Amino acid sequence: MIKAYAAQSAGGKLEPFEYDPGSLRDEEVEIQVEYCGICHSDLSMLKNDWGTTQYPFVPGHEVVGKVIAVGDRTTTVKIGQRVGLGWYSHSCMHCEWCMSGNHNLCLTAEQTIVQRHGGFADRVRAHQEWVTPLPEGLNPAKVGPLFCGGLTVFNPIVQFDVQPTDRVGVIGIGGLGHIALRFLHAWGCDVTAFSTNPSKEAEARELGADHFINSRDSQALNAAANSFDLILSTVNADLDWPTYIDALRPKGRLHFVGVVPNPIQFQVFPLIAGQKSISGSPLGSPATATKMLDFANRHQIEPVIETFKFSQVNEALEHLEAGKARYRIVLQH
Amino acid sequence: MIKAYAAQSAGGKLEPFEYDPGSLRDEEVEIQVEYCGICHSDLSMLKNDWGTTQYPFVPGHEVVGKVIAVGDRTTTVKIGQRVGLGWYSHSCMHCEWCMSGNHNLCLTAEQTIVQRHGGFADRVRAHQEWVTPLPEGLNPAKVGPLFCGGLTVFNPIVQFDVQPTDRVGVIGIGGLGHIALRFLHAWGCDVTAFSTNPSKEAEARELGADHFINSRDSQALNAAANSFDLILSTVNADLDWPTYIDALRPKGRLHFVGVVPNPIQFQVFPLIAGQKSISGSPLGSPATATKMLDFANRHQIEPVIETFKFSQVNEALEHLEAGKARYRIVLQH
Repeated sequence: MIKAYAAQSAGGKLEPFEYDPGSLRDEEVEIQVEYCGICHSDLSMLKNDWGTTQYPFVPGHEVVGKVIAVGDRTTTVKIGQRVGLGWYSHSCMHCEWCMSGNHNLCLTAEQTIVQRHGGFADRVRAHQEWVTPLPEGLNPAKVGPLFCGGLTVFNPIVQFDVQPTDRVGVIGIGGLGHIALRFLHAWGCDVTAFSTNPSKEAEARELGADHFINSRDSQALNAAANSFDLILSTVNADLDWPTYIDALRPKGRLHFVGVVPNPIQFQVFPLIAGQKSISGSPLGSPATATKMLDFANRHQIEPVIETFKFSQVNEALEHLEAGKARYRIVLQH
Repeated sequence: MIKAYAAQSAGGKLEPFEYDPGSLRDEEVEIQVEYCGICHSDLSMLKNDWGTTQYPFVPGHEVVGKVIAVGDRTTTVKIGQRVGLGWYSHSCMHCEWCMSGNHNLCLTAEQTIVQRHGGFADRVRAHQEWVTPLPEGLNPAKVGPLFCGGLTVFNPIVQFDVQPTDRVGVIGIGGLGHIALRFLHAWGCDVTAFSTNPSKEAEARELGADHFINSRDSQALNAAANSFDLILSTVNADLDWPTYIDALRPKGRLHFVGVVPNPIQFQVFPLIAGQKSISGSPLGSPATATKMLDFANRHQIEPVIETFKFSQVNEALEHLEAGKARYRIVLQH
């Protein structure tokens, strides 16, 4: 039996819960969970915000731990190896997307906490290709959040060929945004942090921001017109998107990795005049996760975390929901 | 004095009008107009739809003619040479956009019919780099519309690296869309025409469409979900954009070259899940125009046109406004 923490209903408290995972599938591995980050999407799923949650619901998709069992035909990881697991746990491995290295776009990919049980548990399972070995040098107690929050912001840098000569803005300096600042700084970009919270300026600069704009200061926003090659939005809030489109230079891109509550709305003319794009992306592929870990290791990039015991999981969720996390919470046994 | 056709007020009839263009600027050339296409944007400017029209207003930005005079320091075209002129007539030639071959994104580019007089005239002027010599083999009486309508749809094919293996949809089979079908067919793509007019199906297939979808048939639109790498919208109408976003495959792009009247509106989640983009682009650069003419020449791509005399310009504009043009009108002397 796997010992986990589950909610029995939408928004309910997490309580101890045991389930029988059955036998391991071919090429599937079981991880003994050492650490698990908490992501905003754990909260969204807990509350069934997206209508896809099944209860009992076990959150957790920023797992670090050791492989303790492997299914038949497992060849790429070994028992005892330390690995990470993020938002996706399986994909079909045969469709055009899997076969072209875009496993994250597989139309039948399984998500670690959607209609299956996640990493707030002593053990969790995933396909061997979706668990990524940790390189020596990364601190296992800290890097869990790279597997969802980190990969979410690293993926568009790779997918859209962000260049070190680019001027990049990051909207929202929280769980995702603070890692984006570190990655983009190490990538060589000119980095601007956009935040509604001016008290974050000093820390944003320490994290790698060259500039800071208070996103409630409409004068400062307007003055940024025609400035950015890329603006990466990590927030789940409705902002004045046309102003951010104006802040892009010709050929610029406004890219969403955070789900905003309401439809976005804008005139198409500024896109046409400046050859601008609006886009989004999900978590990255296993190949991108490996690339990210190597880059993080070489540049000593870690998330800034607070730690809670697994037994304090409800306190930790409240801390996150209250907007108090600086910047990512990691649970440990 | 240049003899032109001008409107004296918003939406007014075009009447004979003479103006003194002054002396030629350095590197500027004067073209004796032989042919000039009519574009929807001539109508929009005539009616001051975009608030930028000055009267008297001389439309015309799909010019073919011969160079009859050149300013000092002109080196790239010669008197007697046959050239084309499109939406842009000058750019600064020194900013980062001009210097990187993206002259069409120069923030101070001059537009042929904006705050200056266009090609419904016996003569018109432009910077030497913005007039493109016609290759031998293209019919000067027919290719005027390539310089605006053609370049508008050719430019995104080049800018966004459209591949011959791509599945591409074209929304609107009119002045722009019919040329897009020909270009994309010659580019090797699998091409779908979207039109509200089922009577255009046979002709769309002759123009290069492999498939035809009646865009008023919501069942057919829904059945196209997850089908397209690129959907190119050439219409100036408000459509059900979220359905077209759903029609994109992962990594797909919904691209606008037509200005739609109202803001577009959509949820960001489908962009994130499928790594999709929404974008726009203006006319292409001089280098892209040269590339387009070479491609059109090698593949014998011409617009489908109707011809009117310059003296019938008001009838021609009415014909266009009534939606009767099949597919582009060219004025001749």
